[in-house]
Amino acid sequence: MANLRQASLRHANLALVARTVLAAETPPSRADVAVATSLTRSTVSRLVDELVAGGILDEVESVVGGPGRPGRPATPLRASTGRFAALGLQIGVGHLAARLVDLSGAVLAERLVIADLAGSRPGATLRRLATVATRVLDATPDGCRVVGAGLALPGIVDAEAGRLLSAPNLGWDDVDPRRALEAVLGDLTLRVGNEADLAAHAYAHPAPGRDSTPQDFVYLSGEVGIGGAVVVDGEVMTGRHGWAGEIGHVCVDPDGPACRCGSTGCLEQYAGRLAMLDAAGLGASTPPAELAARARGGDGPALWAMRSAARALGIALAGVVNVLDIPTVVLGGHLAQVGDLLTPGVEEILGRRVLSARWVSPTVAVASDDPAPGATGAALLALDGLVRDPAGLLGH
Amino acid sequence: MANLRQASLRHANLALVARTVLAAETPPSRADVAVATSLTRSTVSRLVDELVAGGILDEVESVVGGPGRPGRPATPLRASTGRFAALGLQIGVGHLAARLVDLSGAVLAERLVIADLAGSRPGATLRRLATVATRVLDATPDGCRVVGAGLALPGIVDAEAGRLLSAPNLGWDDVDPRRALEAVLGDLTLRVGNEADLAAHAYAHPAPGRDSTPQDFVYLSGEVGIGGAVVVDGEVMTGRHGWAGEIGHVCVDPDGPACRCGSTGCLEQYAGRLAMLDAAGLGASTPPAELAARARGGDGPALWAMRSAARALGIALAGVVNVLDIPTVVLGGHLAQVGDLLTPGVEEILGRRVLSARWVSPTVAVASDDPAPGATGAALLALDGLVRDPAGLLGH
Repeated sequence: MANLRQASLRHANLALVARTVLAAETPPSRADVAVATSLTRSTVSRLVDELVAGGILDEVESVVGGPGRPGRPATPLRASTGRFAALGLQIGVGHLAARLVDLSGAVLAERLVIADLAGSRPGATLRRLATVATRVLDATPDGCRVVGAGLALPGIVDAEAGRLLSAPNLGWDDVDPRRALEAVLGDLTLRVGNEADLAAHAYAHPAPGRDSTPQDFVYLSGEVGIGGAVVVDGEVMTGRHGWAGEIGHVCVDPDGPACRCGSTGCLEQYAGRLAMLDAAGLGASTPPAELAARARGGDGPALWAMRSAARALGIALAGVVNVLDIPTVVLGGHLAQVGDLLTPGVEEILGRRVLSARWVSPTVAVASDDPAPGATGAALLALDGLVRDPAGLLGH
Repeated sequence: MANLRQASLRHANLALVARTVLAAETPPSRADVAVATSLTRSTVSRLVDELVAGGILDEVESVVGGPGRPGRPATPLRASTGRFAALGLQIGVGHLAARLVDLSGAVLAERLVIADLAGSRPGATLRRLATVATRVLDATPDGCRVVGAGLALPGIVDAEAGRLLSAPNLGWDDVDPRRALEAVLGDLTLRVGNEADLAAHAYAHPAPGRDSTPQDFVYLSGEVGIGGAVVVDGEVMTGRHGWAGEIGHVCVDPDGPACRCGSTGCLEQYAGRLAMLDAAGLGASTPPAELAARARGGDGPALWAMRSAARALGIALAGVVNVLDIPTVVLGGHLAQVGDLLTPGVEEILGRRVLSARWVSPTVAVASDDPAPGATGAALLALDGLVRDPAGLLGH
């Protein structure tokens, strides 16, 4: 019993040290980790040695102690690169993506396939995804071990059962993605999540060297439709059943156009990609960059599409900010591609409609133009298991 | 140092035991408390003795151990009644209230004054409240000690500074309520909160013997306007600045009527008390019960007012449920008085507009018709300090 207890305490401390290093904004020293974890320096050193030997942490090249820090030079620690990775997959209405992401958040290999998947057959699409995933796994660098897989889906997901319940814009209902991916995954566990939740998770956990991000924000993921997520203290709010964040279906105007969800006047009917292109008089396959170029050139219909989308975003997001008191909004997906054109209008409406705007002005930030941040988030989710229980990987 | 540390550990354990007893659904025994807290039975017994002697806990009359529980009979514990109480105050747009609430949640004394306070002068209204509070304090039962005070206000509050920032329906901006209440409060600390947040807190913590309540819900507090709160795991979600839950200002229709907040088409313009009475062709001072009676009698305008309010509530709440994944809504204030008339319509719209309604049907519950639940919540908030640090009261 005593040994069992000691072992589980050691496992918990290994996880605590790994988490502490990975969550730090700048690479911490052993001493920093001891302060952050309240473990003794010698315990921390022993655990760090084990995590470095096991390939989970790397020691950054030695920094010589300055005059204020004499004695043994501090050796900053960070997540290892290229040693452990997870496969991140994403099915969008307009694309398939596969990515290999390592513990440091670096993308080691990736493939993106542009495809119109609205109304596609789930089995056939999942088999296409399996092919894409195989190519990415084939590109795994030497010495890198793939330890898990995640899949981002544009709809309502039962994460526990690993099933997609419904994705109106794909036209899919009740799909179990694992069977079709079995051959490529082998014994890798597949975790399934909503694409906006996973994109928001990736945004909250940027790779080292990237700008740090807010820890409380409302995230919109623009694609054919609009997904959403709410992040508090760096964690995606899941709600009771994992279905929180469906901002794309907040009502902007009850007399507005019919939505595929069965309701009317949902945000995505104004600011979804198809809705914006349609309002601008452009075809469904026009890239958002083209829409942005036209609006910048003063094209009337394109400008109208921007105004209509900004107004709808402002109205829906004002409701969200009024309810949550999280005055930071991040635009992702196609909304990021036209973000600079939308931001002034959205901020103006938030300033008018948010009750507390007099004291704290709501602001809009624009995410990167990564076409598949959900794939990165899915891989990070799969890696979370490793970070939570590194002992499993170290062969304990 | 060692003694200081031991003392603070004892204080923390006293608080832990007190909290555990007060939060239990049925009165727990010392043994139950030991299991729940992981403290030893002898430590728990010593701490319980101290809390009983100090008047914070009561022992329920002895229950003789059944055949399965031989030995010393278990003595259930519960919050004391009538020993420690807090003053709960509320300023509504239509009333003033003062209540003395004890640790068990029982109301020991109360006063309610119906008054139209829209556009009133803050100083004069606070002095009226002080008079009401004095009468309630004068009715404090012998042997009862008042240990704190709380004030519920219908607007945006800076809880830390104890100030009201803005209450559009009162027409008040930037008010510090303490000065006017100083004479009646003496050295009692006054905690200030939003009335809907405090009403929701009271709903989540019913007095013993009342029905248990859901621990995750969206609460609407209907008065002249509509306040709101979101409760997760029994705790009111405050948001970044304490301003979460402003559901009354979620937009139902951007082309709708102007709201006092400066926006248009806010929920309270359809389902606030004044809006409903106006839609029913009734005067602003008509009691909601009269509106309900007319609707039940088939009066056309009253029925129309109900349908319009239910539609607006459904649209706004569907957005909230889509974003939060909390499919339980509680109607309070005047909305409770007409709750049975509103519920079917609101549930029908939630069923249509909530994306996940196919898997979990959103439901509407109706709160009691207590006209000032915010006053109870304010008193409970003030008592929380005592429960968190009982040692202070016990004279340590």
